[in-house]
Order: sequence, then C-alpha cells, then structure tokens
Amino acid sequence: MSVRPPARTGDPVSAVDTPALVIDLDAFERNLDAMAAYAKAAGVRLRPHAKTHKSVDVALAQAARGAVGQCCQKVSEAEVLVDGGIGDVLVSNEVVGESKVRRLAELAARATVSVCADDVEEVRAYVAAAKGAGATISVLVEIDAGAGRCGVAAGEPAAVLARQIMDEDGLSFGGLQAYHGGAQHLRTPAERASAIASAAERVRKTLDAFDKAGISCPLVTGAGTGTFNEEACSGLWGELQAGSYCFMDADYARNQPAEGSNLPRFEHALLIATTVMSVAVPQQCVIDAGHKTAAIDSGLPVVWRGDGLTYAAANDEHGVVTLKAGATRQPSLGSRVWLVPGHIDPTVNLHYWYVGVRGGLDDGVVEAVWPVSARGCVF
Amino acid sequence: MSVRPPARTGDPVSAVDTPALVIDLDAFERNLDAMAAYAKAAGVRLRPHAKTHKSVDVALAQAARGAVGQCCQKVSEAEVLVDGGIGDVLVSNEVVGESKVRRLAELAARATVSVCADDVEEVRAYVAAAKGAGATISVLVEIDAGAGRCGVAAGEPAAVLARQIMDEDGLSFGGLQAYHGGAQHLRTPAERASAIASAAERVRKTLDAFDKAGISCPLVTGAGTGTFNEEACSGLWGELQAGSYCFMDADYARNQPAEGSNLPRFEHALLIATTVMSVAVPQQCVIDAGHKTAAIDSGLPVVWRGDGLTYAAANDEHGVVTLKAGATRQPSLGSRVWLVPGHIDPTVNLHYWYVGVRGGLDDGVVEAVWPVSARGCVF
Repeated sequence: MSVRPPARTGDPVSAVDTPALVIDLDAFERNLDAMAAYAKAAGVRLRPHAKTHKSVDVALAQAARGAVGQCCQKVSEAEVLVDGGIGDVLVSNEVVGESKVRRLAELAARATVSVCADDVEEVRAYVAAAKGAGATISVLVEIDAGAGRCGVAAGEPAAVLARQIMDEDGLSFGGLQAYHGGAQHLRTPAERASAIASAAERVRKTLDAFDKAGISCPLVTGAGTGTFNEEACSGLWGELQAGSYCFMDADYARNQPAEGSNLPRFEHALLIATTVMSVAVPQQCVIDAGHKTAAIDSGLPVVWRGDGLTYAAANDEHGVVTLKAGATRQPSLGSRVWLVPGHIDPTVNLHYWYVGVRGGLDDGVVEAVWPVSARGCVF
Repeated sequence: MSVRPPARTGDPVSAVDTPALVIDLDAFERNLDAMAAYAKAAGVRLRPHAKTHKSVDVALAQAARGAVGQCCQKVSEAEVLVDGGIGDVLVSNEVVGESKVRRLAELAARATVSVCADDVEEVRAYVAAAKGAGATISVLVEIDAGAGRCGVAAGEPAAVLARQIMDEDGLSFGGLQAYHGGAQHLRTPAERASAIASAAERVRKTLDAFDKAGISCPLVTGAGTGTFNEEACSGLWGELQAGSYCFMDADYARNQPAEGSNLPRFEHALLIATTVMSVAVPQQCVIDAGHKTAAIDSGLPVVWRGDGLTYAAANDEHGVVTLKAGATRQPSLGSRVWLVPGHIDPTVNLHYWYVGVRGGLDDGVVEAVWPVSARGCVF
C-alpha cells in the first residue's frame, strides 16, 4: 500500500502538492532545542510522546537532543518505533487482549519496553506473556490524576497494585504514571496550576502509601505540553511526556501562556499546505482540505497569516474559507492557503508524509521527506 | 509502510484484534443488492461513491451488480480505483493544480475518466493536460445545487461553461453534476423532498439554458444516500452517486426514512470491534477506540446492542463508555464492545483493513480481509 510523497527533496516549497503536512524545519528544531534545554535545566528526563508525531525521524531528532526514549499509546506504535531504532519505549496506557499483550512481550524481548496497569488482571496477563516470550516487562502503576479516565485511585489501591507487580517474576515495577489529560487545555495558567496541584496531591498520597508499604518508587512520569512546568516544579515528577510541543497547534495556541522568562515558547512548526480549488461562490473560496486532512475534534484549522480569510466550515474533502466582512479580494484559483492544524495529533494521523522545508514557508526548499511511520496504528 | 491486518480468514469473529472495521458480509450484500435492484427498477444508472468505502473490493462487488463505475473526490482515489481494475471513474469534484491535472490526464489515457468544472480556468488546465497526455477527458459542469460550496450558478453561467468545454479538443462534455450535500442529513422526508425540489429547479433552469444555447446534455448525475429517491423520481437525474448505503452509519440512522414500500431499507453493515481496556473508574469502562478510530465530525459512535451503555466521550485513543443510570454491571476487562460509526466515510479513512465476517457478529467467521485501498488519498 505504498503511497507516493507530495514533494521531493530540492523542490521549492511552492511545488509541494496539496494538501500536505509541511514542517518548517527551523522552527521545529528551535522547539526541540527549547524543550531539551528546559528539561536539562529543570533536572527532569524528557520522554516525548509519539502519539503526536508518529515519526521515527522525529523520535531520532529528539533522542539526539537527550530524550530518554519515547511514549506511545498502542503496541503497534511501539513496534514501529523499536523497528526504527528507538531503544526505549513506554506505552503510557493499559494493554488488554491476548494478541496485543503477546506482541508487547515479544517487543520487550528486544528493546526496553514499559507499560501501564490499573488492574491486577492486566498484570496477570503481562506476567503470562512475559514468561511466554522470555522477557522482562517494566510495569508502571497508573493512577487517576484527575481526568477520570483510566488509573487506579491514588493512595493504597496503587500500593496494592504495585506490590502485585513486584511479586511477579518477569515484571519489574517501573514507577507511577500520573498524566492529567484534562488539564492540558485549561486556558489560564492559574487553572492549569490548580489542576496539577490536585494531581500532585494524589501523587503525594500515593507515594506516602508506597512508603508505608515499603515500596520504593523509581519514577513518577507524566505531564503534557500544556502543564509540564507545573509537574517539573512540583519536585514530584522526574520525567515529562510532552508531545505537541514539537509542532504546536491552534488549540494549544488558545492557552494563555504562563509567565516566566525561563519557560520555553514553542512556535507553530507544522502547517498544512492547501490549494484553492473553487472560487465559484462569492465571498468565499473552497480549498482542498476538509476534515480528512485536518482533524476538527478540537476546533477548525486556522488560516495562517490569513488577513481577511476565515476557515469557516470543514466538509470531508473541502474547506470553505470565507472572506471577512469588508474583504473583497477572493483568493485566486490555484493559490496557496496555509492552515494551522486545529489539533496536531489526530491531524498527523491522517497523513502518510511530512515535507520538511528549510528557509521558511515563503522561499524555502524541501530538505526532508519523512514518513508518518506510525500513522493509523490503532492496535 | 505495510501494516498487518487485524484478522485472518478462518478466524472466529471473537479473534479479530481491536479496534477494527468489521463488515457483516450478509448485511453488506443485502445493501448492495437492494440499491442495485432499486436503480434498475427506477431506470437510473448507479455510480456509487468511493469516498465512502475507498475499496477496490467493494467497487468490484458493486460493478458485479451493475454499477456503471465509481465516483471519487481526489485524483489519487481515482488512480487507486483504476489500478485495481475499475474502468470508469468520475472525479465528482474540481481538480486544480498542475501536478494533479497532469495525473488526471495520464489516467484518462488508460481508463474512462471524467471530472467536474465550475470555472473556465479549470477547463483550460484540463485542455492543456489532455493534450500533453494525448487523452480525452470528459468534463461535467458542476452547478451549485443548493449547498453553496462549489459549482457555477444554474442557468446561463452553466451553459457558458458547457460551451467552453465543447469548444475544446481533448475534452468532451459529460453533462451536469448536481449534488446537494446539505440535503442528505435533513431529518424529515419533507425537508429532503423540498431541498431536492429546489435542486431540481436549478437543474431545469440549467437544462433550459442548455436548450437555448443548442447544447445537448448527455446526463445529469448526483444524489446521495439520504435523497436518491427524490432525484430519481424527478425524472431529471439519470445517475445516482450514493455512497454510504453500502455500510450506513449512526448519522444516517437519525434520518426519518421516507415512506414507500419500494424504497430500499439499508442495514448497518459495518461495525467497529473494540475491547474494554480499563474498568478502574466506577460507572464507566474505557474502550480502545477514540477519534483516531471512529470519526466524530457528525456525532459520536453509538454502542451497538448496548443495553445500558453509552459512548459518552472520545479522546484520541480512548472511548469512555458510561453505564446508564440504574445499570451497575460494568463490562469486564477484555470484553468486546461493538460500535456503529458516527460518520462512515471519515471513519473508514482512518483504517488500513476491513474484516469481512460471514454468519453474523456473534458466531461468524472471517471470510474476507480487504485493504482500505484508497485510505488517506488526499491529493
């Protein structure tokens, strides 16, 4: 099922076929450098989340800047990363189902692999699979850090589960997974700080219960692009799992940034190149990018540097871009419209290729063409 | 970028890995048979829309039942269909951009290919590419049938464009594309009838303008799963482009069906198999299917035969399924939950494989494993 890329190295950016994901390599590298420098200065590990980029090439670029490994959500993502040369992957999720757990264990036999648990039945399945594969799987206890989705309750239930992991041959206890997904897009710094403060209470309660039970916790891992400074400054989390920072998106751009000169500011480094394909209806144009190109679960994509243009409606293959009141100049048929993705992770997942451009989106040249290695990896 | 399928032929349905698209082949074939019989009795051509199924196997099954060809929205979809053996493809869309138009013309040199236009600049580009490839491209005039997206205004502007097509060597005039996307999910039969009656007015106005201009219109093509009987009964449309009928979805299920014993009733023939992967938080369970598995642009997926269960929230890789008030039995870890897709087209586009099951979703056996041939074909 091989699909040709929308550009070749050496092409001018104007020649990139559309719609396509275009990485502004200069901005992308600044984002990677900024987060690496932040983590180093804060004394925490960085384990970027591949659910955002789904790319071996991006993961390798992060490794080159000191990332300790990658996170992902699915065993098939982990397989792609390991097959691409990434040596250490945390599946920051529970894995349930005989086939998946067997594949996880087989992967653990050839790379450093960790996974989460929030139920002893999961632990039992991990044990059986680890034995079958002759591997050791590192298992972290996931607590519900406030999102109310997965995870055991903080405190004693977490200690009970940790003990169940430690009692098993074939497993090692990797620590605590505490990720508050619901906090990432709270719009004000105060709301985010408060949400992570609550998460931190749950972590402390859990670490106290571990102490009482004589359990040593090797690591607390979590955080995302919206909140990572809160987790780092709490002194509790030793590893950050931010993903979106590498590219950013319109939803994160609606967060009010926290104050602080030491805090990295990430730039929009991934834009969607589109073409105007109809100008037949007045006061609008239609571009070749709907929600099969740009995910709309967290809002519509936003026109980049689009004076007078609003991405108003997404159909499957078409985007209706309206002219703002007072604007009269319809973009011409065949002209380029750049979009900031509404939500980067599911947008990336729709595509086969990244086109990496050096020298900016106006005059740049295609320098890199990277596959979206783990696109569509759902099991 | 080869991705293994989630099942093999001969597997019991219980062994299908998740999440996965599962076709109930018996229901699917009944849907295909019902629409083929309807079109034959109504004396109209059926040109199913591949934007729904994106599958050479489905297209071949439709061809075997008398479909005249396929529709699609993108040149890359057309290439996949032609490379899979489909001889006649209508790109029911405008194609703009040198690279795309060149590929369209190259395709027209080896299959019967038609495309739409709503601007003379598009026609000029089609001409140049047709000459370059030594091919003839059939070009239809698209009118705005009421959706206000693409398409010239009905009447004289359409006749002007048709004349511009007819005047060019390398192009043939294919007729009128009149598709009212906004009508498909109007909930009552009366609303849908009214919308298509308005579309029919626009078609009549256009055909009158063609007559005045001495232009013979070979065909009017359009319609969708929501409205096709309206177009067929008007006597104006000679070809139906319905797509979703082959599988159906939750959004179409919310349409009140029109009365009429001759009208086909389509069944849910594609379900998403998922697995419960966390039961840690009370009154809910979490399944392994979020919006990277089931598109949510037209509403959430719906639990199939799910007494007491509601698919309440979609994150990227997780679906939160809540227990209805009064229900206490949490589904067990590892158990199967079936989902009806919210919107079939963009859901299919997220996946690599269809698993076709014979004998129903309870006790059936995997009989077919089909690639989603044109998944992710955006340019």
